[in-house]
Amino acid sequence: MMEYPLLLRSILDRANELFPQKEVVSRDYTGIHRYTYADYYRRVCRLANVLRELGVKKGDRVASLAWNNHRHLELYLAVPCYGAVLHTLNLRLFSEQLAYVINHAEDSVIFVDEDLLPLLDGIKEKLGGVRHFVVMTDRRELPATSLSPVHAYEELIASASDNFDFSRDLDEYTPAAMCYTTATTGDPKGVIYTHRGLYLHSMCLGMADSLALSEEDTLLPIVPMFHVNAWGTPFACTWFGSKQVLPGSRPDIKVICDLIVEEKVSLAAGVPTVWMGLLALHRKARYDFSSVRGFVCGGSAAPKSLIQAFDKEVGAPILHAYGMTETTPLVFASKPKSYMKDWPEDKIYDQIAKQGLLVPGLEMKVVDEEGRDVAWDGKQMGELLLRGPWIAKEYYKDPERSMSAFAGGWLHTSDIVTVDEEGFVNIADRSKDLIKSGGEWISSVDLENIIMSHPDVQEAAVIAIPDEKWMERPAACVVLQEDRRGQVEYEDITNFLQGKVAKWWLPDKIIVVDEIPKTSVGKFDKKMLRQRYAGG
Amino acid sequence: MMEYPLLLRSILDRANELFPQKEVVSRDYTGIHRYTYADYYRRVCRLANVLRELGVKKGDRVASLAWNNHRHLELYLAVPCYGAVLHTLNLRLFSEQLAYVINHAEDSVIFVDEDLLPLLDGIKEKLGGVRHFVVMTDRRELPATSLSPVHAYEELIASASDNFDFSRDLDEYTPAAMCYTTATTGDPKGVIYTHRGLYLHSMCLGMADSLALSEEDTLLPIVPMFHVNAWGTPFACTWFGSKQVLPGSRPDIKVICDLIVEEKVSLAAGVPTVWMGLLALHRKARYDFSSVRGFVCGGSAAPKSLIQAFDKEVGAPILHAYGMTETTPLVFASKPKSYMKDWPEDKIYDQIAKQGLLVPGLEMKVVDEEGRDVAWDGKQMGELLLRGPWIAKEYYKDPERSMSAFAGGWLHTSDIVTVDEEGFVNIADRSKDLIKSGGEWISSVDLENIIMSHPDVQEAAVIAIPDEKWMERPAACVVLQEDRRGQVEYEDITNFLQGKVAKWWLPDKIIVVDEIPKTSVGKFDKKMLRQRYAGG
Repeated sequence: MMEYPLLLRSILDRANELFPQKEVVSRDYTGIHRYTYADYYRRVCRLANVLRELGVKKGDRVASLAWNNHRHLELYLAVPCYGAVLHTLNLRLFSEQLAYVINHAEDSVIFVDEDLLPLLDGIKEKLGGVRHFVVMTDRRELPATSLSPVHAYEELIASASDNFDFSRDLDEYTPAAMCYTTATTGDPKGVIYTHRGLYLHSMCLGMADSLALSEEDTLLPIVPMFHVNAWGTPFACTWFGSKQVLPGSRPDIKVICDLIVEEKVSLAAGVPTVWMGLLALHRKARYDFSSVRGFVCGGSAAPKSLIQAFDKEVGAPILHAYGMTETTPLVFASKPKSYMKDWPEDKIYDQIAKQGLLVPGLEMKVVDEEGRDVAWDGKQMGELLLRGPWIAKEYYKDPERSMSAFAGGWLHTSDIVTVDEEGFVNIADRSKDLIKSGGEWISSVDLENIIMSHPDVQEAAVIAIPDEKWMERPAACVVLQEDRRGQVEYEDITNFLQGKVAKWWLPDKIIVVDEIPKTSVGKFDKKMLRQRYAGG
Repeated sequence: MMEYPLLLRSILDRANELFPQKEVVSRDYTGIHRYTYADYYRRVCRLANVLRELGVKKGDRVASLAWNNHRHLELYLAVPCYGAVLHTLNLRLFSEQLAYVINHAEDSVIFVDEDLLPLLDGIKEKLGGVRHFVVMTDRRELPATSLSPVHAYEELIASASDNFDFSRDLDEYTPAAMCYTTATTGDPKGVIYTHRGLYLHSMCLGMADSLALSEEDTLLPIVPMFHVNAWGTPFACTWFGSKQVLPGSRPDIKVICDLIVEEKVSLAAGVPTVWMGLLALHRKARYDFSSVRGFVCGGSAAPKSLIQAFDKEVGAPILHAYGMTETTPLVFASKPKSYMKDWPEDKIYDQIAKQGLLVPGLEMKVVDEEGRDVAWDGKQMGELLLRGPWIAKEYYKDPERSMSAFAGGWLHTSDIVTVDEEGFVNIADRSKDLIKSGGEWISSVDLENIIMSHPDVQEAAVIAIPDEKWMERPAACVVLQEDRRGQVEYEDITNFLQGKVAKWWLPDKIIVVDEIPKTSVGKFDKKMLRQRYAGG
């Protein structure tokens, strides 16, 4: 076979040659922007010429601080196909963290959305290494900013040439993109995605047993393009010629629902909290979601009650998946095996509420604290270890933390899981969130999922609180449904849990809160909850 | 990302770990044989131990001369995962060619099906390099043979250990399999498939926009396992945990139809002549094909009339695909783009009667005789050139023929094609089968497809006959429907063609024949027809 490198250029070329008429729809500052992959390709060529004019060299890091929109999508392929590395900045980071990751990655140019300019204005003294700022707006004129030197994206694009000869002379292990993941302690950690890794991961997203993404799909990523590349969907969609619907700046759940209906979205991707919000709105507003074949749910575990509610009330299934920044991200997809379709309904839901089966191409191990394989019985917990062509091999310029997380050539995920007889993996907890009571582990995720199936409960997060006798005991922070606030007692919750979990799993405290704090990527922020309620 | 090699071992491990209960069904000499992937895995381990006992070294060629059955499937993964190269011998080769390819590949061991022993017995004097023969039968005892040293497969398997530690220490470019393709002139040409190429090709077979092969499928390969690895389906099915139904020795079309019905096959794969046979039988016997989601058709172009008949009479679509031995084989898959579904029915059929769109991962060029790109207008013909990670880079130990076929780093396919505005490729002809009349090209394939849509015609093959004035003119060799024999005239056919093709395309001769000769892989043998009817 030819030694033909696996490069993102294949993705760009195919969209242009085979799907020039298919659309990219982007919610812009001034309305809905539409163009075709033929238009997209021309602008990607122009953007590559702009990169050259800005003095970007192969291997340089070029950063984006942007929402899900068409300009961000242009950066997605222009930067790596040019030979540079797209560093997608998380716009929800604290300003010191933002400055840290820009400097740690040594970003040479930053492309920033108009309404995110203040984030950079506030830290400009710390960004001495950045050679150019480019503001992405719908207009050609620049908004007010103290950044310098600063350019207007549309102005640069307008004056650049339509033609660019993307090189095939790149090694497939060339870095294409990178993003940082916040750490429990210490600075954020950088992960590099190679052309090869993103290419193979995109193929995997197209496989019938993972997401089956295809030309027929219209995809709406609610997961941000700065969060593990919106789970890799922009690359895969462009490759397959799928229609993309990008929801733009600060989309609320109503904007999302309207876009799904108007653009006939077939697949939307987001974290469980987004889908809880969609369900709550749908219960009031009754949308027509008949174009949707699935709501891809990742980032945290989807509670069984949510999965059931989507089937019954929304009319399209939750497609449950699992991954992390270090894994590009797809690792598990929860789709019942063919023979499971004959199972009783409730047993099927129990099964797909798990994170699912390892996708083709990856390798896993689940080990106990002594590094021994645990039994696949659905009960024994162990840490999930992963290897494969789209798993990171290290943290960027961070040998110390890399050494422990990638010991022995495996990614040690810190996720504590069980594996059942069918090979379905269930995340019991992040290792730091596990509750160790009297020497035994309690899964906070399992408790949360059951509590969230209580009709009066909107959201629940379970944390460990210190206990003299048992070392740790579970406490549940609970957000009640609006119309039930002030009317729910400790026993209402614990009685509901009786018979569903072991007695010693029952939370010692139910803490009613107005809101569960979320991390920068929309997960429950248990660190914050522990600070508030567990004195830690 | 990790430098994790793309190896077939990933396929073997996943089947064993995630789908131990799924079935492989094999039509054996003594009936239907069934076992699970767990059983399969144990026998593959045993077989690897057998290879070691037979003295097979890494890189050695191990040949199979076998039908589509479970033992052949065991060889498919045991040999490459062991580190050797599986050479699948075409059992329809002439005996001199068979001896040639065995010696050219330097096969060290040959595994042979019981009923194919005579093929080797007849050439045994020429096989001095072969160190062992292993006979695959349902029994432990050996049938009569003059080969030596000779072993019984089941005897070797029974006495081998269940455990084998397959190495991960293989480069992904390590050869895994090989097969020979017959040439228009000269000896057959060898093609090597690497682990990397087969791995990526298997992923591609699972993609929604190619065959969408998945765990839910039950696949019946009628295409032989010696013909481009049954189009790669055994590797992909094993990886995804699909049920496999292997039709065994000399299956006739009735056996095939019965297996489809009894085993609830969802996808069957074969050449157009097989599907013509199935259609003819179905018209008499009325099978229940409700389990089938598609009949994958490759090897030659599927006539539009056949595609229509399957939709209307059989009730499941022909999935039209294109590939060749040098391409592992999948290159094009013909699936209408989403917006084509609103087209008039006849236009959709015109579209999917083409070979289709380039699958993700490959790169193509279509060039005229001066090497210039032809326009994508559906009219201009040019030679198809291909590059990509599952395209061969050379013919095995054949630098001379490799130099022309792989000039400039592209595979020159010798297929003359058009590309339409949608990017759909249509094979007009093999370059050697094109008819050049008065300096203009006539596509024999187009003529055949239209003639085969005539209700009185069962099969048609068009060849060039010499002509003093025009250099070449088309002649059609036609097999009539049984009940119409002796009742069809030259004008019946040419009148039917009027208005459907340019006047100067009308064949000068209609030659009624009892049967169109077929090549060793079931394609029309036009070389033979030219010898008989064109004096060439």
